[in-house]
Amino acid sequence: MIKTTILRSKKPRLKNPILIEGLPGVGHVGKLVAEHMVDELGAKKIMEIYSPHLPPQVIVLEDGTTRLVRNELYAYKSKKGKNDILILVGDHQSTTNEGHYELTGVFLDIAEEFKVERIYALGGYGVGQLVETETVLGAANNIKLVKELKGYGVEFRPNEPGGGIVGASGLLLGLGELRGIDAACLMGVTSGYLVDPKSAQAVLKVLCKILEIEVDMAALEERASEMEKIVAKLREMEQGQMPASTDEDLRYIG
Amino acid sequence: MIKTTILRSKKPRLKNPILIEGLPGVGHVGKLVAEHMVDELGAKKIMEIYSPHLPPQVIVLEDGTTRLVRNELYAYKSKKGKNDILILVGDHQSTTNEGHYELTGVFLDIAEEFKVERIYALGGYGVGQLVETETVLGAANNIKLVKELKGYGVEFRPNEPGGGIVGASGLLLGLGELRGIDAACLMGVTSGYLVDPKSAQAVLKVLCKILEIEVDMAALEERASEMEKIVAKLREMEQGQMPASTDEDLRYIG
Amino acid sequence: MIKTTILRSKKPRLKNPILIEGLPGVGHVGKLVAEHMVDELGAKKIMEIYSPHLPPQVIVLEDGTTRLVRNELYAYKSKKGKNDILILVGDHQSTTNEGHYELTGVFLDIAEEFKVERIYALGGYGVGQLVETETVLGAANNIKLVKELKGYGVEFRPNEPGGGIVGASGLLLGLGELRGIDAACLMGVTSGYLVDPKSAQAVLKVLCKILEIEVDMAALEERASEMEKIVAKLREMEQGQMPASTDEDLRYIG
Amino acid sequence: MIKTTILRSKKPRLKNPILIEGLPGVGHVGKLVAEHMVDELGAKKIMEIYSPHLPPQVIVLEDGTTRLVRNELYAYKSKKGKNDILILVGDHQSTTNEGHYELTGVFLDIAEEFKVERIYALGGYGVGQLVETETVLGAANNIKLVKELKGYGVEFRPNEPGGGIVGASGLLLGLGELRGIDAACLMGVTSGYLVDPKSAQAVLKVLCKILEIEVDMAALEERASEMEKIVAKLREMEQGQMPASTDEDLRYIG
Repeated sequence: MIKTTILRSKKPRLKNPILIEGLPGVGHVGKLVAEHMVDELGAKKIMEIYSPHLPPQVIVLEDGTTRLVRNELYAYKSKKGKNDILILVGDHQSTTNEGHYELTGVFLDIAEEFKVERIYALGGYGVGQLVETETVLGAANNIKLVKELKGYGVEFRPNEPGGGIVGASGLLLGLGELRGIDAACLMGVTSGYLVDPKSAQAVLKVLCKILEIEVDMAALEERASEMEKIVAKLREMEQGQMPASTDEDLRYIG
Repeated sequence: MIKTTILRSKKPRLKNPILIEGLPGVGHVGKLVAEHMVDELGAKKIMEIYSPHLPPQVIVLEDGTTRLVRNELYAYKSKKGKNDILILVGDHQSTTNEGHYELTGVFLDIAEEFKVERIYALGGYGVGQLVETETVLGAANNIKLVKELKGYGVEFRPNEPGGGIVGASGLLLGLGELRGIDAACLMGVTSGYLVDPKSAQAVLKVLCKILEIEVDMAALEERASEMEKIVAKLREMEQGQMPASTDEDLRYIG
Repeated sequence: MIKTTILRSKKPRLKNPILIEGLPGVGHVGKLVAEHMVDELGAKKIMEIYSPHLPPQVIVLEDGTTRLVRNELYAYKSKKGKNDILILVGDHQSTTNEGHYELTGVFLDIAEEFKVERIYALGGYGVGQLVETETVLGAANNIKLVKELKGYGVEFRPNEPGGGIVGASGLLLGLGELRGIDAACLMGVTSGYLVDPKSAQAVLKVLCKILEIEVDMAALEERASEMEKIVAKLREMEQGQMPASTDEDLRYIG
Repeated sequence: MIKTTILRSKKPRLKNPILIEGLPGVGHVGKLVAEHMVDELGAKKIMEIYSPHLPPQVIVLEDGTTRLVRNELYAYKSKKGKNDILILVGDHQSTTNEGHYELTGVFLDIAEEFKVERIYALGGYGVGQLVETETVLGAANNIKLVKELKGYGVEFRPNEPGGGIVGASGLLLGLGELRGIDAACLMGVTSGYLVDPKSAQAVLKVLCKILEIEVDMAALEERASEMEKIVAKLREMEQGQMPASTDEDLRYIG
């Protein structure tokens, strides 16, 4: 395999579809939200995307079978909302810079194929310390979209994130603009050290309002309260006599 | 040379061939097994595979001559077994992610050319400490194969290895599945620090049962007992006053 | 996007144009000069250059909108000078060696399209310590140009910079020579630790003389005097009891 | 520039040419020998090879002019010897593995164009400590050549260098063999820490015998005796109270 390859099942007819991207990233916020939506909405998988720009790796499943790392596209036909939804999830993002450009190009080809006119790229914004608030930071590839999102409580801070937005989320906005596709990034503010289902909840709440859909959050709430117990324990330990390496260890929890 | 290149000798006619892959990896377990099989079965080399994705390097042989690093395919015509055998060995795996995809694609082209319907990718599963047992861990690209291999004593653990299977072995399963080729990975549990002929023996025993062939293990046993002496010595040293860096030093033995 | 892509606005007719390159580099000297010229001369943007060799990243602007990282070409029609001016600026340079060759090839294609016969690549020359003088070091891809630039006070030192000139500036000279385009590099001597508007001023002064144009330097002077205050403070701290890591911290100021 | 590019001057008619490769490597032994031969024999430059696989860099010369890093081919028409000589030198080798394969492929295309039937790749063999003897280690891509070179005092050690031969020298032997071109590597044994003109002398002596030519060694002898003074000083310092980092510092001398 020397090119990115798409395996398709039957192509659904979708009504004004909106594309949600939730590939792995900071605090796995985007991934948590997107996978939760796939589960709760019962979205159907319509594409598998394999690529030499993903790691050369299979994942071992619970029954001992394997599957090649990939990105997946799910479709959800909305019963009452005005937009059907496409959801992009995956095991990994590209391992190289050039690969990010190529894969995002593929994602945008798909968006154009379905006449997607808006993309929400989901992610986390790591601030380097444990976070109490439920802030969702936004950025968008045009000013009209910025204004609209402010109406949903999305926060916009000048020049933030200072390091820009990297990877698939960033390029969906950047390359999307070049193709005339509206795209916004919704970033749950998070420590960056832990998988953060609470921040994911915050992002999902905003997204549900925007999309005019309802998604049961019980599963995500449960994961969030489990994680809160871990965080509480960590705080205790910090106030005790933990060595300086604590923060680094946290990265591996989740 | 800008493309992977195959040098072929005469193409043998093979009966229901099975492909064994034993490229270098953790504990060199797969490599030890596959090279031992080539030697003991007297398999004939039928292909040399050269690639810019391998290191830019020649190996100096005992007589002062050199040869370019490569992968090699050997064929064994079984006298009584129901399957002929193809064995893939080599000096190195790809040095890049993209190269892994390309080279495994080449391997699968060859498998299809010979109408191979099953692949056994051999490897080691490094657990980070010296290992006493002779466990062979498995993973396969379909559930039927998982069940079949359990019958041969291969152990399957949910979601293990947790980091998935990387490199050629992983991709033979992953890309093999996309091409409809049954493939399993047999991993000898090993420390990961040492070349491990004992773990290789464990894998070879299982493989012989599966393939219904007999392979003399004397040479491998001899290497294993030599290695056991080294390990015994290392244990002694550990119980003495070795500095903390011992483990790292072990990596270079073998 | 798998290829470098140029978005063009209307192509201006330019009179004997000279190309100024000021992409990011040591002390951001070249970038400061080139962006200052764009602002002060009121040059018009005529091209945006996007490339998979740039980082996969969008920058978040003050109003919450984003734009894909890129290189930009501006044109300035000189009222009285004998040369119109093209100015190349950008957020980043290529992230790979091969990408540098490809992007500089694109820049030179553009230079040829506009029949540019001379290129000034601007940069900084980091000497590893705080610098008092306003030296501008030069290098050029032919001896006639070296002689001419000496007349403008540009300093030439045998075999300096010892490490050569890397990145776009270097390749504009090197690949430019192969295409028969005169090109010189003007390097403001700078510490290499700080964004250096004072060194940028020195380069700009020389450049104005060469181009026979006048550029208001007030904005650059202001930035330089702000930076001098920071440097003064740093010197004080150095004479006090700063830990050894000071220099490294300086890299992040600016 | 996205492909390796060759600039040629007039193509000379050569009699049974032999190709000498002396690109930069361990102790710069090969480079010293090859450049010395170019100077002393008065060989004429017939090709410049530019490539995106070389660093994106120009070198600044003594007069302030620059030139793009490159590889160069020189031709020497022998007056009395039976072989004309082609000499390949350069500023750098490829910066990537794949680039090594591509560039060596270009070198071999050139060798075939001139009907070169033998290649001598020159290099150093770093042994990690200061070396007194004048050993030249050899390796060749066929056994006949090994035997012949032993007759000239070249030493062959089983499986040495243990790490194989990497880069252009290695691939000239490895890829050369695939094209049916005899090739040998002559490696001056050297510390690996210092540019080593003494080791270069040893290699050159052997090469002169093989090629039946005479090359004045005065310049190389002078550099060697200068370097010996430095080495003597270093030894003194080692016997004194030098900190442990000495060896590393040595790398930068030369």
